[in-house]
Amino acid sequence: MKFPSDFLFGYSWSGFQFEMGLPGSEVESDWWVWVHDKENIFSGLVSGDLPENGPAYWHLYKKDHDIAESLGMDAMRGGIEWARIFPKPTFDVKVDVEKDENGNIISIDVPERAIEELEKLANMDALNHYREIYSDWKERGKTFILNLYHWPLPLWLHDPIAVRKLGPDRAPSGWLDERSVVEFTKFAAFIAYHLDDLVDMWSTMNEPNVVYEQGYTRPQSGFPPGYLSHEAAEKAKLNLMQAHARAYDAIKEHSDKPVGVIYAYKWIDAEDEAAEKAVLELRRRDYDFVDGLYSGKSLTAGERKDFKGRVDWVGVNYYSRLLFVTFGDSVRLLEGYGFVSPRGGYAKSGRPASDFGWEIYPEGLEKLLVELNYRYELPLLITENGMADAVDRYRPYYLVSHLAAIHRAMGKGADVRGYLHWSLTDNYEWAQGFRMRFGLVMVDFETKKRYLRPSALVFREIATRKEIPEELEHLADVNAITAR
Amino acid sequence: MKFPSDFLFGYSWSGFQFEMGLPGSEVESDWWVWVHDKENIFSGLVSGDLPENGPAYWHLYKKDHDIAESLGMDAMRGGIEWARIFPKPTFDVKVDVEKDENGNIISIDVPERAIEELEKLANMDALNHYREIYSDWKERGKTFILNLYHWPLPLWLHDPIAVRKLGPDRAPSGWLDERSVVEFTKFAAFIAYHLDDLVDMWSTMNEPNVVYEQGYTRPQSGFPPGYLSHEAAEKAKLNLMQAHARAYDAIKEHSDKPVGVIYAYKWIDAEDEAAEKAVLELRRRDYDFVDGLYSGKSLTAGERKDFKGRVDWVGVNYYSRLLFVTFGDSVRLLEGYGFVSPRGGYAKSGRPASDFGWEIYPEGLEKLLVELNYRYELPLLITENGMADAVDRYRPYYLVSHLAAIHRAMGKGADVRGYLHWSLTDNYEWAQGFRMRFGLVMVDFETKKRYLRPSALVFREIATRKEIPEELEHLADVNAITAR
Amino acid sequence: MKFPSDFLFGYSWSGFQFEMGLPGSEVESDWWVWVHDKENIFSGLVSGDLPENGPAYWHLYKKDHDIAESLGMDAMRGGIEWARIFPKPTFDVKVDVEKDENGNIISIDVPERAIEELEKLANMDALNHYREIYSDWKERGKTFILNLYHWPLPLWLHDPIAVRKLGPDRAPSGWLDERSVVEFTKFAAFIAYHLDDLVDMWSTMNEPNVVYEQGYTRPQSGFPPGYLSHEAAEKAKLNLMQAHARAYDAIKEHSDKPVGVIYAYKWIDAEDEAAEKAVLELRRRDYDFVDGLYSGKSLTAGERKDFKGRVDWVGVNYYSRLLFVTFGDSVRLLEGYGFVSPRGGYAKSGRPASDFGWEIYPEGLEKLLVELNYRYELPLLITENGMADAVDRYRPYYLVSHLAAIHRAMGKGADVRGYLHWSLTDNYEWAQGFRMRFGLVMVDFETKKRYLRPSALVFREIATRKEIPEELEHLADVNAITAR
Amino acid sequence: MKFPSDFLFGYSWSGFQFEMGLPGSEVESDWWVWVHDKENIFSGLVSGDLPENGPAYWHLYKKDHDIAESLGMDAMRGGIEWARIFPKPTFDVKVDVEKDENGNIISIDVPERAIEELEKLANMDALNHYREIYSDWKERGKTFILNLYHWPLPLWLHDPIAVRKLGPDRAPSGWLDERSVVEFTKFAAFIAYHLDDLVDMWSTMNEPNVVYEQGYTRPQSGFPPGYLSHEAAEKAKLNLMQAHARAYDAIKEHSDKPVGVIYAYKWIDAEDEAAEKAVLELRRRDYDFVDGLYSGKSLTAGERKDFKGRVDWVGVNYYSRLLFVTFGDSVRLLEGYGFVSPRGGYAKSGRPASDFGWEIYPEGLEKLLVELNYRYELPLLITENGMADAVDRYRPYYLVSHLAAIHRAMGKGADVRGYLHWSLTDNYEWAQGFRMRFGLVMVDFETKKRYLRPSALVFREIATRKEIPEELEHLADVNAITAR
Repeated sequence: MKFPSDFLFGYSWSGFQFEMGLPGSEVESDWWVWVHDKENIFSGLVSGDLPENGPAYWHLYKKDHDIAESLGMDAMRGGIEWARIFPKPTFDVKVDVEKDENGNIISIDVPERAIEELEKLANMDALNHYREIYSDWKERGKTFILNLYHWPLPLWLHDPIAVRKLGPDRAPSGWLDERSVVEFTKFAAFIAYHLDDLVDMWSTMNEPNVVYEQGYTRPQSGFPPGYLSHEAAEKAKLNLMQAHARAYDAIKEHSDKPVGVIYAYKWIDAEDEAAEKAVLELRRRDYDFVDGLYSGKSLTAGERKDFKGRVDWVGVNYYSRLLFVTFGDSVRLLEGYGFVSPRGGYAKSGRPASDFGWEIYPEGLEKLLVELNYRYELPLLITENGMADAVDRYRPYYLVSHLAAIHRAMGKGADVRGYLHWSLTDNYEWAQGFRMRFGLVMVDFETKKRYLRPSALVFREIATRKEIPEELEHLADVNAITAR
Repeated sequence: MKFPSDFLFGYSWSGFQFEMGLPGSEVESDWWVWVHDKENIFSGLVSGDLPENGPAYWHLYKKDHDIAESLGMDAMRGGIEWARIFPKPTFDVKVDVEKDENGNIISIDVPERAIEELEKLANMDALNHYREIYSDWKERGKTFILNLYHWPLPLWLHDPIAVRKLGPDRAPSGWLDERSVVEFTKFAAFIAYHLDDLVDMWSTMNEPNVVYEQGYTRPQSGFPPGYLSHEAAEKAKLNLMQAHARAYDAIKEHSDKPVGVIYAYKWIDAEDEAAEKAVLELRRRDYDFVDGLYSGKSLTAGERKDFKGRVDWVGVNYYSRLLFVTFGDSVRLLEGYGFVSPRGGYAKSGRPASDFGWEIYPEGLEKLLVELNYRYELPLLITENGMADAVDRYRPYYLVSHLAAIHRAMGKGADVRGYLHWSLTDNYEWAQGFRMRFGLVMVDFETKKRYLRPSALVFREIATRKEIPEELEHLADVNAITAR
Repeated sequence: MKFPSDFLFGYSWSGFQFEMGLPGSEVESDWWVWVHDKENIFSGLVSGDLPENGPAYWHLYKKDHDIAESLGMDAMRGGIEWARIFPKPTFDVKVDVEKDENGNIISIDVPERAIEELEKLANMDALNHYREIYSDWKERGKTFILNLYHWPLPLWLHDPIAVRKLGPDRAPSGWLDERSVVEFTKFAAFIAYHLDDLVDMWSTMNEPNVVYEQGYTRPQSGFPPGYLSHEAAEKAKLNLMQAHARAYDAIKEHSDKPVGVIYAYKWIDAEDEAAEKAVLELRRRDYDFVDGLYSGKSLTAGERKDFKGRVDWVGVNYYSRLLFVTFGDSVRLLEGYGFVSPRGGYAKSGRPASDFGWEIYPEGLEKLLVELNYRYELPLLITENGMADAVDRYRPYYLVSHLAAIHRAMGKGADVRGYLHWSLTDNYEWAQGFRMRFGLVMVDFETKKRYLRPSALVFREIATRKEIPEELEHLADVNAITAR
Repeated sequence: MKFPSDFLFGYSWSGFQFEMGLPGSEVESDWWVWVHDKENIFSGLVSGDLPENGPAYWHLYKKDHDIAESLGMDAMRGGIEWARIFPKPTFDVKVDVEKDENGNIISIDVPERAIEELEKLANMDALNHYREIYSDWKERGKTFILNLYHWPLPLWLHDPIAVRKLGPDRAPSGWLDERSVVEFTKFAAFIAYHLDDLVDMWSTMNEPNVVYEQGYTRPQSGFPPGYLSHEAAEKAKLNLMQAHARAYDAIKEHSDKPVGVIYAYKWIDAEDEAAEKAVLELRRRDYDFVDGLYSGKSLTAGERKDFKGRVDWVGVNYYSRLLFVTFGDSVRLLEGYGFVSPRGGYAKSGRPASDFGWEIYPEGLEKLLVELNYRYELPLLITENGMADAVDRYRPYYLVSHLAAIHRAMGKGADVRGYLHWSLTDNYEWAQGFRMRFGLVMVDFETKKRYLRPSALVFREIATRKEIPEELEHLADVNAITAR
């Protein structure tokens, strides 16, 4: 099962989850205060594990790049922490914001002058350190994808504890506040201006849908600010769409590289025939964010010319599926399948689930890629795929079966350019902390030592050959990896 | 292991969880709208199961009383749904409310005239139907404990969906609103006036602490209104204390029966020595609600003469423990033990856990009862104890081991008057719906048929003899009931 | 689900497995030396547990009869240990043995004179103690079935250790030696002469097929003498058939009670259609023992007039099934089903298995009874049915589902007269020792104390009412007793 | 954790388990008839799987050697099937046999003339095919260890079905017959004469102790002839010792390579202090076979000068431990540990067990090697080590933890020269058939295709570097590979 010779194999990381771990790497942000908040910890909403005990990529990036290289990786998607670059407000830096008659932000101009002013506010040491990190990778002759936003917001833009106490009207409310759109655009322009030379592909943001879905419609997920409001979710979604579109434009001022967006896809499926129609609608809603930025038309934003054509490539994060069952005249999520399976057990389908309780469902990725290819005529990149599996029980199967699914989808025409595993090393899994181990490489968080899980060797075998060799094809078969 | 000849054996039930199931039994309340809310269901906060498909006690009470009698039960703790009696606001019925200089409600007088006005607002058919239910029980020569409040509030007092949308300032906010204290007192006076002849012991409320803890500090529990605010929790707690004290006084106007309160106890334990001190403080806070109403002094309410002596007996609901471990200079809840154990699996202690993931920990009940006896010189009644165990795998052990723990505590002086199991039949477990099966008696929710689980026979054996006979003592031993 | 008012509920026991446990109850026999043999223990063929540490029924029979009575039992099938009554050879007592031209024993006459001589050889104290045991039961107004042979042979007839060392030609070889037929007939005549007044129904022997199958075709079962020889199995089978027929005749000399035989039935099933024919043949072989004694014609013995009509009733022991699958041009036993399922786990059918690894398969009993009723026009009695389940996890289901299967078979015409559970108390399970717990009543083998498992209460409920009451019918449904 | 640069990494195979699978490779032998015997299959003593459906190494050896080479293996221990070379009796070839006054065979001279006569009886095509197989390996520059006997005997020497039917006196009885000693010596001389040029190290036999222990003391193991007799076991042991000593001498006539013996070691351990003494004695007995051939003194053979010094190196096969517990005044094997643990579950120690139910216990190997080094001043070679693990759940841990144990033992002075894994590919596991999967490489027995399990990649990593690299050291830690 051969992949094209220019197919990329690599991994993805984010700032908050990887950088901290050794002194001097800490950054205050909304997520920082959220996971340190005593009420959150006491209520069990967050784990109590702390990101400052993480894998310490900020200091140990060379080591991790060495390992990645040894595993045959030729691409990496990295992040940059907004709050690290701009620990203080950037509101006062003037830019031209154009709105339409409905108050939508349809254009933002960030002139060179503004970038100069931003330099004075920026932590330039941090910026330079990021340059060192990225350069170390680039000097190895590798591809680098830079993603600008992976969830933490500067505290001056979003204080979820204050929002909880005072309400979103009386505290910095993050993506509920349209000023976030403007500030993000400044940030994007600033980074593109400074770092474009190191970047092969840009992404504005990672999984915006998780931010507004978990944050405003699944309080039990432990995501900030953690209250249930469909309206808030819609508002945040709209602002994130605007933020993407405006950042896209800003980056393009300084770059001729493709600019994309990374989305948290899943396969949405119907348990029974009666649920099919509702599921089609759910899928349509799930595609809506990218649809809007691709075609300029969306359920949330309506017709927006200023959105159209703002996606040069689509980043696909895929982990599992959601299965819906008929419930009265609507549908509801079925427990025991997909993302709501028993942790470390078996889904009701008989398929194994991850430590996180995520059913392993590679068929969903194939179907999804075929659908996305039909939907957009754009290059696709798998920007996240992996599993929480501390003992590496199923990861070899997870890896190979999903690669085989990608290969099948490519056979059906999907224009997939590469596969970035989530992730190279264990890291800090948001509200879950260190319990969820997503690394090909195990990290001993006490000593920061790295150890290769067997799946890392399987990855290397495939990545270095750019194929699933015949003698590893059995690992795509669930029957070869589960007891009869 | 003999119990005193007047030791009560019985069961407890609540209106919302048991009454509905056949047409004509539905009642709108905050919980009703909460579990029907589509956003709640879609987000997975609530199960999607609906209370109108419940065990139908409203219609089938005679059948259940027959079963209870056949199992040797001689006591029952029942409820009455506030929203069923007063579907519309009672604000306009005037009563005298006295406040101190801090705005605390220290006295409420509900004159006969007010009761007459309330009669005009009340659903008297519902009241009469409750009379029939309770009479059916009393005519069997049994003891009846009536509890006035078991969580659902009339929608005119609490609309959690509106609170979520508009904030507690702009929607009926339940126990955050001191008017709830006044209206509850009217309700209590009204019920005592009408039903005292059937009642042997009064309870104002069941597990007020669950209302303010789950509702305001554990959003993931799926309890309304489901946001995290220590301040709101404290405010609700204070109002619930006031509500109890004023209802106590109001009932006493019409009754010479003992009036108590039922609390959700658990055993709070320290994993390590360093956590001991913090745990002592946590216990003190946990006892604070009842402390305040017993002694007039509490952390939350300070010194309140109008609280002192307002508890004639204490209702003890006990299911499991909470284990805390040192975390920095504080403590945090330890997962894998007590209420946060694997569902249907084993706690990290090696003890089995319920379908709900609640570790079976009978020692905690013994320690708790000894502590409560030392703390208050009051009669104690076990008002809830039981487990979610659909297949009746561990319930015989759960039942007997907890009865043995009670017996040991009585040997150490605890004045325990009886044991009310939660519950006779399967019922609607709040946000969890029908998945959690707490019945000695299985209910087929389709047909409403009742079936005895083996543990029902074990219960009968003990209740009819008022002892744990020697030939059943092994069931108190976890080793006899778990594979070696 | 009502049973006829004269339907018997009770239990079965055997001498070797129950009697010993307190000093003075030990008996030497082939099984005694077998389970004490150091090579057997060291090789793991037998457990190393010793029968002299058993439940001590010899001394505690009154206690067990009290419990049986309290559980509503009205019938008991008991045993008598041949080696206890005749510890020394009875060869020298002359009787008339008639053989046909093929050397078959077709008649044995045991005159009164021989019985007198046997009295001099017999341990009359033991005989009298058995009389006391049986009388204690009869005086309660209960039915008593006496079975003469339940596996242990006097050492002077069978020395399995010597057989192993020297071969069956040079050591007492038990049922391979036709003298066993003669001596057994003497024993039968002697017991019938002395104890018929206490007996309601006679059985000559229990599960003769297990003796020759496990003993000569399944060496891994740990049964004496434990070698694999189809010829030996056939020879032992023939002698056991002759022993039954001659004992039948001998008992009839002294008794007008019905005389039957108890057989280890199981349901033999085909996995695939191709296996059906072979399975029909396997069933025919399995029925052959009783067929021969009923009709006088059998595969093993050919036509034997002296066998015909020697069964007045059939004792049915049923535990599980055997599933066969096509294997080349024959069939083989399928692992993972029936008697070869994972211990304490689930059969591949998804049905639970006992601690012994026996799939719970009540349908097989229904089919079997219908088949037996069609095959013989005889009363049937369930003489054994039960499961090894130390923690009583599935026994309530096992009990009720098999009773329901019996009820269904009776509805189809099967003439079933009663149900004797295996067993009342935990006992010594042959090569497995004390690990396999078959009791409705748990025995603490240290203290000899008895404790009721919950299933005992379920049994009582049914036995005292002679019905499966509607409120316990759910226990016949595997779905009510296994997690979804 | 570095190994010496000349430390060997490789694998072991045996003829019966690997060669067959494609037409033309079948050989009749005692094991062949044993696993085909219908009574054995029907009784469940053997699996019913047949060796002619095996991995087909006879035809596919080049493929397997390619894989072995790709995994960094530089040594292989192979076998040669006696019955394949001599399908007919060799009794008539005269050799000089010298006996002492006790009838012991103390010398056998196999003159060149006898070798010529043997050539006429031998299947020279088979011999030449073995030469091709071994040459293919040697031409890759690898080390080759040839083992002469790995269990199957020619049917003319041992017919276990006939032994069962007629007794060992009246049928070819294998190692109970001293003629086997003589014929084996002829075979050894013949093979050494013909193949010594390809051999680096000789072994006379593999695990003789399994032959006499399983064959004569553990009938439930499904090994021929499957009856329990301590005397037979001792006799077989003595003859195997004589066979080794005489074969040693015969090989030395034609070879100057070291000649050793491979033994089935295990770590024998005491559960309680009282068992220690008995366990010391059990260990002494376990070492006795090799002791006798090393020192000339043994429990079984007494003082034998003709045995002394007949071991140049010791082959260590190690899988797990045996744990003994005090039982009366002796000891017995404790179930739940070592080789008698739950299949695919956890030993009572909490350690994982293989699909075969063998506890993973690497500490035992370390202790054993230290003991053997102290006992003999000889080079040691790990000639078998591996686990049945179809899904490769624990094999990476098994492999690395045992290599780490070897490394520790070497640090304590043990002279270990290499590590041969059992095995490269899945194969036919005797009475268990194909259920037990021991391969680093999975075999699809239908298609004969080979697939690398992840553990194969781990093996390669270590073998090619001759070290356990730091980044794989975690795989020696059971905590890294089992869920917390």
